[in-house]
Amino acid sequence: MSKVRVHNFAVSLDGYGAGADQSMEQPFGHADGRLMSWFMGTRSFHAMQGQEGGSTGVDESFASAWGPGIGVEIMGRNKFGPQRGPWTDDDWIGWWGDEPPFHTPVVVLTHHPREPLALEGTTFHFVDAAPREALAEARALAPDTDVRIGGGVETVREFLEADLIDHLHVAVVPIVLGRGEQLWTGLERVEERFDIETTASPSGVTHLVFTRK
Amino acid sequence: MSKVRVHNFAVSLDGYGAGADQSMEQPFGHADGRLMSWFMGTRSFHAMQGQEGGSTGVDESFASAWGPGIGVEIMGRNKFGPQRGPWTDDDWIGWWGDEPPFHTPVVVLTHHPREPLALEGTTFHFVDAAPREALAEARALAPDTDVRIGGGVETVREFLEADLIDHLHVAVVPIVLGRGEQLWTGLERVEERFDIETTASPSGVTHLVFTRK
Repeated sequence: MSKVRVHNFAVSLDGYGAGADQSMEQPFGHADGRLMSWFMGTRSFHAMQGQEGGSTGVDESFASAWGPGIGVEIMGRNKFGPQRGPWTDDDWIGWWGDEPPFHTPVVVLTHHPREPLALEGTTFHFVDAAPREALAEARALAPDTDVRIGGGVETVREFLEADLIDHLHVAVVPIVLGRGEQLWTGLERVEERFDIETTASPSGVTHLVFTRK
Repeated sequence: MSKVRVHNFAVSLDGYGAGADQSMEQPFGHADGRLMSWFMGTRSFHAMQGQEGGSTGVDESFASAWGPGIGVEIMGRNKFGPQRGPWTDDDWIGWWGDEPPFHTPVVVLTHHPREPLALEGTTFHFVDAAPREALAEARALAPDTDVRIGGGVETVREFLEADLIDHLHVAVVPIVLGRGEQLWTGLERVEERFDIETTASPSGVTHLVFTRK
């Protein structure tokens, strides 16, 4: 049975999954690289960048689970780019350049649908749909594979609220961001729907895996 | 040199150190025992209750660090009891009965000072003071020993804001409380003043130890 999975989703001690003030220059807002530095050190991230090396310990064992079994990703528009409202810059092809790291279809949730964007190995489909409908569209694009919910914060939260997540990997980073987008808002007692496994990394990050009961 | 220490301070994934709606019947508010269940299973907690048994693993190794070296505790009034405003119930002697578990002087921060309350092994001193002054009073009561900041949330936060904490043990509990008192509010980038060590427990709790740089 096809699972819906979230991987490598970092939150601060105060529950923020993204900083404030996202912009072209600061894709992560004022959080800069602080939420993802544990990930950027791993072999998996290095490989995504076409680089050798990287760490091979606890953080890598979680980072590397991102790809296997996944046939399609769903992401929010804010992960695709910093624009809001109607599309005004047709040259924008996402943060990742000509060859995005996904190598699957990607469903981008937006209130402003447009034609698909086909890049090397990855096609972006722009869809105005609630979580359940978006999931059906994603599964139609890649039958019998798992679906990754790629973020951002609002997208993960909406899929959790709709009880559509089977596997949620959250990396709790020991920093206090103070501002930004909260993951857990509206999700009181969400843990009761999951078994939870906790693993500490020497990087200081705690990996929590929520598996639906 | 006398250190200022916080032990066994539990917060939820969304950063709440106490639930909403504290009352006589619910000392922890709507959080009930959920923030402290990892602690209540330990040998140290059992011993505080005059009971045998209890767990002896990771959680116990943190729980048991609560006492050694400590000569005095500072707590907020909300930890002492659920009353607010001027004292109206002189019979209230705290949540703990005739023999509180502290066995040291305890400084209770309140805007409504009153005479000290001497119980078996523990005397409560009621003091209207800012963190730095309260710390001086506590040290005068027990020179050359460490001072424990016993909570609640507001008290720990105020001492962190004033940069008076040397050792902070936070237990991150994998629950979403949704409401209550936030520990981290106003403490953006507080982690930069500390070295942090992370330990996962089989209970699902993550123990973070912040040691001042």
